[in-house]
Amino acid sequence: MGKVEYLKLIHVDEALALIREFRQVEDSLELPLPEALNKILARSIYAPEDLPHFSRATMDGYAVFARDTFGASSSLPSILEIMGHVEMGKAPQIRLEKGKCASISTGGMLPEGADAVLMLEHTHRIDEGLIEVLRPVAVGENVIGVGEDVKRGELLLEHGRRLSPGDLGLLSALGITRVHVKRGLSIGVISTGDEVVDPEELPPLGKIRDVNSITVSSIVRALGHSPHHLGRARDNFYDLKALVERALNETDILLISGGSSIGTRDLTIQVLKSFEGFRLLCHGIMISPGKPTIMGNIGGKPVMGLPGHVASAFVIMLIIVRPLINYISGMKWEEAVRYFSFPLKTSRNIESQPGREDYVRAKLKKGEKGYMIEPIFGKSGLISTIVEGDGLLKIPTYSEGVYEGEEVEFIPFGPILGGIR
Amino acid sequence: MGKVEYLKLIHVDEALALIREFRQVEDSLELPLPEALNKILARSIYAPEDLPHFSRATMDGYAVFARDTFGASSSLPSILEIMGHVEMGKAPQIRLEKGKCASISTGGMLPEGADAVLMLEHTHRIDEGLIEVLRPVAVGENVIGVGEDVKRGELLLEHGRRLSPGDLGLLSALGITRVHVKRGLSIGVISTGDEVVDPEELPPLGKIRDVNSITVSSIVRALGHSPHHLGRARDNFYDLKALVERALNETDILLISGGSSIGTRDLTIQVLKSFEGFRLLCHGIMISPGKPTIMGNIGGKPVMGLPGHVASAFVIMLIIVRPLINYISGMKWEEAVRYFSFPLKTSRNIESQPGREDYVRAKLKKGEKGYMIEPIFGKSGLISTIVEGDGLLKIPTYSEGVYEGEEVEFIPFGPILGGIR
Repeated sequence: MGKVEYLKLIHVDEALALIREFRQVEDSLELPLPEALNKILARSIYAPEDLPHFSRATMDGYAVFARDTFGASSSLPSILEIMGHVEMGKAPQIRLEKGKCASISTGGMLPEGADAVLMLEHTHRIDEGLIEVLRPVAVGENVIGVGEDVKRGELLLEHGRRLSPGDLGLLSALGITRVHVKRGLSIGVISTGDEVVDPEELPPLGKIRDVNSITVSSIVRALGHSPHHLGRARDNFYDLKALVERALNETDILLISGGSSIGTRDLTIQVLKSFEGFRLLCHGIMISPGKPTIMGNIGGKPVMGLPGHVASAFVIMLIIVRPLINYISGMKWEEAVRYFSFPLKTSRNIESQPGREDYVRAKLKKGEKGYMIEPIFGKSGLISTIVEGDGLLKIPTYSEGVYEGEEVEFIPFGPILGGIR
Repeated sequence: MGKVEYLKLIHVDEALALIREFRQVEDSLELPLPEALNKILARSIYAPEDLPHFSRATMDGYAVFARDTFGASSSLPSILEIMGHVEMGKAPQIRLEKGKCASISTGGMLPEGADAVLMLEHTHRIDEGLIEVLRPVAVGENVIGVGEDVKRGELLLEHGRRLSPGDLGLLSALGITRVHVKRGLSIGVISTGDEVVDPEELPPLGKIRDVNSITVSSIVRALGHSPHHLGRARDNFYDLKALVERALNETDILLISGGSSIGTRDLTIQVLKSFEGFRLLCHGIMISPGKPTIMGNIGGKPVMGLPGHVASAFVIMLIIVRPLINYISGMKWEEAVRYFSFPLKTSRNIESQPGREDYVRAKLKKGEKGYMIEPIFGKSGLISTIVEGDGLLKIPTYSEGVYEGEEVEFIPFGPILGGIR
């Protein structure tokens, strides 16, 4: 059993580094392409052949020897004889001779000998058998050569990649119609907190409805995996222990959607500790919102205790749990932790405490000079601050804040939650 | 029958404006929240009650009269008597008296009379019944007041909105566990082109495998709708006509994934014209790649003839068809056409022909000064240029290009294809 730290705060980077001690899922399955969208490729794929496997015209016009067009211009056109026509979808029967050309459509196969395609627009038809060339073409112009798109044996797609529509197109082009992908993950979600009732219930004074279960589950679904809501544990040891036990049997990762009180957090730790092989990896992260986050390992399975405030849980889901799920699902480490962000100027001053990373919910605001970013200053218990937000604005650990007009890193929700790169 | 234009090129904005003549889907269905993720809300939702419906503590500490703490400091602390403890999830039985306080946990309900919560860290416990107050708190501090998140009657979510994880959390908080959403669309996809074979086949010289069917279908799926691949038509009138007829009966929008030759395009127009009530809305858009795009209306149903080159079809799917699908599916016009973009400096010169909008596939490149954008100069027939790209770089209609180091608009693939705002 490793070292246990209780409420020793760690940096976001340290928390992320802890993820790598878990094993990635190994099971894979073979799927036809249409079902493989957004799945994680289990084995690298190499090109079984050249793409294309013959030289193709990319324009309508005439297949030519490029040399025959050199020096041609509208004032001094070259003249070429039309030998014949390339039929679409067929290997041309013609062998191009010097001083001659063959009419060809976009996508047509170049006849032997031809090394360029002259665009129709750059020719003038004299009669049935002759054209004037009004401009020269270079060798290879308006042609996709053999293997120009992909060379045989080339690495097409590396394992660990999430398959995009373009990726599936590439596989299809090479006749690869089934792929081995990692199975999706089953992610357990347990709600806790004596102050929480199910959304269907009318909460009496002192209680509120469960918000985090659906938010957390939906993020899991948006990431391409299956949430498995095991139910809500009352704030007592045996209730929670029974649900955790079930989750460990049935799911790959367990998310305990926390009550907000110290009592619930203590109980969560207590229950986790009662499992053999449990290691507390972290209890508290230097992040705002989201500090009271728990990360543990029970016999190799990741268990996260999420903070209770809705915005805190949301931020932890995106900044910590998303990389965890991505990595366990088979993605390469660099891909799993990567998110898309860019600098934008803030429309207001934002204070920050040095010593923690701040993720402020923020709105995009289109001004005269393009987008600015407007922080939403709401308490982390307010769900409306998430609904109104377009993304998160990141203030680094050692900053005391930023001034109006300064550039800050903006992380839009779209790409971080979209299934596609 | 309206005006028919043949190969009269129109601007991208004009092409987009044509979309609005189509009717949006009206059918809706009621779904439980977990199934409503990424669906389009059919009816606006107003808050049926205040959220929260009682004042809650957002910190662990003591519920107080803020006035009792005014002027308190560590050198001159005020002293308060502890009247009792607020139990989580229950309405407190205490009525707070002046000069007194009640211990409370995060999420606990404020007792009557209390108007702020003093953080535990800012107190010192003298004995069982007394605390020292080391800092003052303001009225409302560390408290979420009644209706502070959402006020009763307030517009929560407007119809036409795509439901995000946060949106579902908000609904859940208010006890709304089922929502009316628009039904998903069935999008017909027909492949054409005599030079194309199915991906399972070994193409002879002169033919290539179908790439666009899977790419186009996957984009449809990524947008949250159901692609319906009706098959591949050989380049003859009756083959294509039969498939279009079936598509008109079975689907909401028809995408004809074009062969690349003039012949196939002419055939497509010919077949479309043979349907009663057909109107050719556009034949050719001032866009690169993607110029030979057809948009038509058959008895109210949108029909698109996509360009044959893979990258051209991809760009048209994102820039023209995505807004079309979004709009028909019930999204507000502004949302349907909106995409996420931001300015980035290009790492190279890029030429452009004035008179058309250029969408150059591009890669993000992390340099010393943050991201730059590197154009991928590949022929539009190359699928590999899409696979390598992170997004599109837009060059406006009247520009002749941009120089290295100049800022250009970058449209990342992630948010444009991700299911979530």
